[in-house]
Amino acid sequence: MAMDDETFCPHFHRAVELVGKRWTGVVLRELLRGTTRFSDLRAAVPGLSDRMLAERLRELQAEGIIDRDVHDETPVRIEYGLTAKGQQLQASIEALSEWAEKWMTR
Amino acid sequence: MAMDDETFCPHFHRAVELVGKRWTGVVLRELLRGTTRFSDLRAAVPGLSDRMLAERLRELQAEGIIDRDVHDETPVRIEYGLTAKGQQLQASIEALSEWAEKWMTR
Repeated sequence: MAMDDETFCPHFHRAVELVGKRWTGVVLRELLRGTTRFSDLRAAVPGLSDRMLAERLRELQAEGIIDRDVHDETPVRIEYGLTAKGQQLQASIEALSEWAEKWMTR
Repeated sequence: MAMDDETFCPHFHRAVELVGKRWTGVVLRELLRGTTRFSDLRAAVPGLSDRMLAERLRELQAEGIIDRDVHDETPVRIEYGLTAKGQQLQASIEALSEWAEKWMTR
């Protein structure tokens, strides 16, 4: 099990700082809940600007965590969705959501 | 279940940005693995300075995630340990460790 490694884990280090980067965690949580459109993601997260959301989505795409699908319609429809790599963040984000509900509400 | 909430969760937002703050995730992972001394924590995390570790430990203490025990010996012995609140981060940190082992090693 990953926690029993003898040594410092650089992969965990990268992962936790990626997921914990400003806005990234809440955007991932929204994607896990099934939100797919840019405007819906932005609307779901108070205080998140277009610019920051676009930047975070680009970073998540570069990490292979999300896909961006462009549907050739008029007007063009763009959807964001989690890859297999992104979907598998569900367990940790769910566990942290439960922890937050229990401990961060006071 | 916490992920099914209708609305944006400010508690999750705070939690993910707390755990994901630079160095905090790896320090928590070391504490969960049973490391208790300042010097051992610092040694376990390459690149982490005394100053940054002290700052992160203070923040975690202020959040009620860790305790700082001072043992009246010569020289004085100080130990850090997770509170109940901190211990319960284990599920999410373990899940993210497993995810990182699988997806961040390439």
